[in-house]
Amino acid sequence: MVTRARRTRVVERTDDGTVVTLSELPGGLRVITENVPGARSAAVGVWVGIGSIDETPRLAGASHFLEHLLFKGTRTRTGQEIAASIDAVGGELNAFTSHEYTCYYAHVLADEVEMAVRLVCDVVLEAKIAAADVDTERQVILEEIAMRDDDPEDALNDLFASAVFAGHPVAEPVIGTVETIEEMSRTQINGYYKRRYSPDKMVVSVAGAVDHAQAVAWVKSVVAPHLDATVRPAPFRPDSGIRKGSGLHVAVAERDIEQAHLCLGSLALPRRHPQRYALAVLNSALGGGMSSRLFRAVREERGLAYTCYSATSTYAGIGSFSVYAACQPENLGEVAEVIGSELAAARTGLTAEELARAKGQLVGSMVLGLEDNESRMSRIGKNLLVRNEYTSIEAEVDAIRAVTADEVIAVADRVLVDSWSAAVVGPYRRERDLPKELRRILR
Amino acid sequence: MVTRARRTRVVERTDDGTVVTLSELPGGLRVITENVPGARSAAVGVWVGIGSIDETPRLAGASHFLEHLLFKGTRTRTGQEIAASIDAVGGELNAFTSHEYTCYYAHVLADEVEMAVRLVCDVVLEAKIAAADVDTERQVILEEIAMRDDDPEDALNDLFASAVFAGHPVAEPVIGTVETIEEMSRTQINGYYKRRYSPDKMVVSVAGAVDHAQAVAWVKSVVAPHLDATVRPAPFRPDSGIRKGSGLHVAVAERDIEQAHLCLGSLALPRRHPQRYALAVLNSALGGGMSSRLFRAVREERGLAYTCYSATSTYAGIGSFSVYAACQPENLGEVAEVIGSELAAARTGLTAEELARAKGQLVGSMVLGLEDNESRMSRIGKNLLVRNEYTSIEAEVDAIRAVTADEVIAVADRVLVDSWSAAVVGPYRRERDLPKELRRILR
Repeated sequence: MVTRARRTRVVERTDDGTVVTLSELPGGLRVITENVPGARSAAVGVWVGIGSIDETPRLAGASHFLEHLLFKGTRTRTGQEIAASIDAVGGELNAFTSHEYTCYYAHVLADEVEMAVRLVCDVVLEAKIAAADVDTERQVILEEIAMRDDDPEDALNDLFASAVFAGHPVAEPVIGTVETIEEMSRTQINGYYKRRYSPDKMVVSVAGAVDHAQAVAWVKSVVAPHLDATVRPAPFRPDSGIRKGSGLHVAVAERDIEQAHLCLGSLALPRRHPQRYALAVLNSALGGGMSSRLFRAVREERGLAYTCYSATSTYAGIGSFSVYAACQPENLGEVAEVIGSELAAARTGLTAEELARAKGQLVGSMVLGLEDNESRMSRIGKNLLVRNEYTSIEAEVDAIRAVTADEVIAVADRVLVDSWSAAVVGPYRRERDLPKELRRILR
Repeated sequence: MVTRARRTRVVERTDDGTVVTLSELPGGLRVITENVPGARSAAVGVWVGIGSIDETPRLAGASHFLEHLLFKGTRTRTGQEIAASIDAVGGELNAFTSHEYTCYYAHVLADEVEMAVRLVCDVVLEAKIAAADVDTERQVILEEIAMRDDDPEDALNDLFASAVFAGHPVAEPVIGTVETIEEMSRTQINGYYKRRYSPDKMVVSVAGAVDHAQAVAWVKSVVAPHLDATVRPAPFRPDSGIRKGSGLHVAVAERDIEQAHLCLGSLALPRRHPQRYALAVLNSALGGGMSSRLFRAVREERGLAYTCYSATSTYAGIGSFSVYAACQPENLGEVAEVIGSELAAARTGLTAEELARAKGQLVGSMVLGLEDNESRMSRIGKNLLVRNEYTSIEAEVDAIRAVTADEVIAVADRVLVDSWSAAVVGPYRRERDLPKELRRILR
């Protein structure tokens, strides 16, 4: 390979000796590695900045369909060879598709890192997409849709997104619909792949027992035919700000099941919003652990649910804050009332002890996650892709520690609204069948 | 503390510098640690040799009920203090109950290991079990039962155990029944706790950034009041061999859902059976990965299911081999036929390539798991409890590598039977509603 990395630079060195290095190849593909001293394994990810929001309505689910098809064979490997090469070394090989990107990854022992890098790059860049495989995987995806529908919590997640993000592309399910999956042709999917999967939208991240220069060389040897030296990295989706006037909706899916599943939430912050660290602190104190307000109030003090937690989701231009609980239908009204009053109470902010605990939880769990090479690979790869720049661990820790009580109040005032969006999966036909205590805090 | 460890010995030193050390305290409590050079965290577990098979019929679910109650407070800590001390450092604290044992565990950064060891030991040994907490947790467990019933795969697992192990205590669900949970009193649960939770049935395991002598000192300082120097470790349940004449049953649970969930299996081997490594190899080749026979035949070649895998479960005196798949009801007959013919074909053994790949998968995934301190803690703690002795990684690897093609045929001949037990969750009222291709291979 005569192509050289356009720029190679060390972007972080930590006290414990890990070194993060970033190279940009001609053609815009970026390679980021995190060398961890003493690591016995390495995790490899190829992050592609293509997801379900890139699809036209007729192609709904194409990104996820592709994710399945890429494991079915490349120009030089059959699907069985791809699977066998990872199984034979006890490794893991998998992928996931989101609204904004798709990630293909492997986790293997240190001796196998070259094999894994070459394999994952080959899978992503050299897929064959045979017509027979399209038809087989179509059936598999239809099974996956049925599985989602039968799992109350999975169904709830898609339903809640459809409610809170109504009118925005992230309101649509990543998996597509039965209709679009049944209709999609090999030609359409292959065209989508050829048009969309270009190296300028890709980040390869490797963490653990890895040498940066070697990793760059392995990646180059696979992607060389796809590199066009005049192309630069494609910027990720712009932060267009919160979309107004959408999202205040209630969605109900009837199921003949014993529990009612509730997700209650509001439009919150997009990914790079300056208040995001304050929101993380608020979320942690409200519903981030066993000592959080919602878990205590709903489960520990009243025994109303097996679990109750809050969460945030973020995208380039939109985001949500939400609370989840599942309970016997006869308790749904009381659960909604308790959640509603905890959320209202939190608008006045947190105690000093809660603030300190929430920061400790965020920092501690982030550092604890670094022990796992898959987490490290995700952190460096996803961050570089979606932020277009590397954010150091130190910078993240500092930003969390700097959050003030007043900043939490400010963000609470913004996301803890008077009228919530919601999704409910359970024995209800429509919104007016829901208990009045719940309807009172909606809309 | 003047009590000294009765015996302290190093039980394994590996090439990468980890040292496993075991101490037996007066009173029979054992402490086993794995010091991992360079580890940034430690995982702590207390393994108690008490589970649902120790319960009388009226107390069904008592072990799991206890597991919930132990986090509600000790003589010196409230439930909120227990939760807050782990949340504040971003750690994890949890527990699980099985038929034969219960495990309480925490995972924290290296600086917090003393806090975590003292906390988990206090939770297990000094629980208060207040009557009000019993009533609150009763509601939480009833929610958990409803959740199990609404989750087709969870419901299937309990249903399959009831079919294949019929007549044996492990056929009963760990969680108990709505009736026993509703009836159980504080006095009954507290009595069960006082009688059963003795140090001679406990193993404390710590893996990661831990010094053995320190860990022993911390454990002793909490358990000292409970130690009786005349007591030795209680031997784990004896291997009574496979029970004959039970287990050939079919169980159907009707659900108004889109998929049919099938678990098909046979009585196989108890935990310490000499053929267990050969069974592990067979299981891996049949349904242990993406290149396995069942995954290829059912999903990759025919697109009949999103997933299809095989598994083994083992107990002191009994065990099972099983295959799982979920599919549209109209495909259940074909799925059963494909699974049935793959299982029948495997009785003649594996190809040399499959044998090598299965061994590579077992060894590789075991070594890969060692990167995680929670896995290490589980390995050393559970193995010591259920085998009454430490089994080294080296010994496990050697045993897997030594499995021969003939040994696989011998175990295949034993577990791949002519007539299978099965559980089905889906749109079926009873056994005779199942497709004939499935009924043909049952009983």
